[in-house]
Amino acid sequence: MGENLTVKDIAAMIDHSLLRPTLTDEDFMEGIELARRYKCATVCVAPYDVKRSAQLLEGSGVRVSTVVDFPHGSNVTDAKVFEAVRDIENGAGELDMVLAISRLVSGDFDYVEQDIAAVVTIAHERNVPVKVIFENCYLSDDRIVTACAICEKTGADYVKTSTGYGSGGATLDHVRLMRRSCPDSVSVKAAGGIRTLDELLAYRAAGSKMIGTRATSPILEEAATREAQGTLKAI
Amino acid sequence: MGENLTVKDIAAMIDHSLLRPTLTDEDFMEGIELARRYKCATVCVAPYDVKRSAQLLEGSGVRVSTVVDFPHGSNVTDAKVFEAVRDIENGAGELDMVLAISRLVSGDFDYVEQDIAAVVTIAHERNVPVKVIFENCYLSDDRIVTACAICEKTGADYVKTSTGYGSGGATLDHVRLMRRSCPDSVSVKAAGGIRTLDELLAYRAAGSKMIGTRATSPILEEAATREAQGTLKAI
Repeated sequence: MGENLTVKDIAAMIDHSLLRPTLTDEDFMEGIELARRYKCATVCVAPYDVKRSAQLLEGSGVRVSTVVDFPHGSNVTDAKVFEAVRDIENGAGELDMVLAISRLVSGDFDYVEQDIAAVVTIAHERNVPVKVIFENCYLSDDRIVTACAICEKTGADYVKTSTGYGSGGATLDHVRLMRRSCPDSVSVKAAGGIRTLDELLAYRAAGSKMIGTRATSPILEEAATREAQGTLKAI
Repeated sequence: MGENLTVKDIAAMIDHSLLRPTLTDEDFMEGIELARRYKCATVCVAPYDVKRSAQLLEGSGVRVSTVVDFPHGSNVTDAKVFEAVRDIENGAGELDMVLAISRLVSGDFDYVEQDIAAVVTIAHERNVPVKVIFENCYLSDDRIVTACAICEKTGADYVKTSTGYGSGGATLDHVRLMRRSCPDSVSVKAAGGIRTLDELLAYRAAGSKMIGTRATSPILEEAATREAQGTLKAI
């Protein structure tokens, strides 16, 4: 067992995901309330929910993140830039962009780099960090390592494993690979299929600074139980 | 058995899908060649492949279609419009846009309507037809009927069953429901999971004018075999 943790430490790692296409207004409001109650780091909402999320969470300490060109990453670069600018104008404080997956698969690394750099540039001009989603389920280890190097060059703030809408989600091996393929200045975020506190702790130990999940409530309830018992510890 | 058909009739119904995120450059070139060889109605490519597709298919009779806000439909309307304009500038002759799924689910029909109307307006100004993707797997029959009425009001050219990236694809029941919920001026396109000539013929009989598929080659090879045998007939 490692160091003691608190529920607050766990909540500060969580990006509460509200991206599913079937989300109703009621689900949305519940999700916003949940993020506020637990003081998650961020909520991740669809672009068309950014403005109302920012209004509802003003002063709460929970930041609003959204996704750019999600989940395929196959839009032209200037459309990604347009989206990103609009998202920030609407109140997004963080952006999770999907890289140009099929260009990366095909080995067109210059394209992938300029595409990420364009979004990072306009986001950083507005003091908004950018996480770059790889969608590892479609990538070889070689491509993951290359994408990490590209992200470092562009000044991206995070590399992120998955959209949660591909053929697979995060794996511990991929997080370890990403962690050792990036300098300390680039953080790793795991997302896709993380449903329990023990999984979150395993991803934390593997080098993931943030976790994207829908299972925020069960994870933080379990964390509260363990904290009360004195058993909430890092692994 | 119904009327005699030709391979040409079948090919003229097919939108050959080249949208998967793992598509390599080699896959892309093969797909373009296949569409040209069989003279499909359209190829459906990712936005960042529109320009090269239009160049490669110039004069072939195969039109280039692409997707707008695919596959979640959760972008703000002006980002959808920006995408659509850029796609058309890059050479897209048809647009398959995803409607605002979670807004439809939540019953915000005015939002859904203005979102579709904005894209239809700019596309029709440029003589480009618009297909509206519903993603039926996430919708009740009531919502499908309502979406058909909304599409009619906006002047959309087609209603389309699925993205092929949701939890389910086309069904014959959904196509029949869409066909009887739209006037003749709005056509129906089925996509998602259609892999054989017999399936295509069943969707045709159910009221689908176009079919989106990756299985263009096996479908048209089977059609050629049946045409040679004199057994290529509508059902």
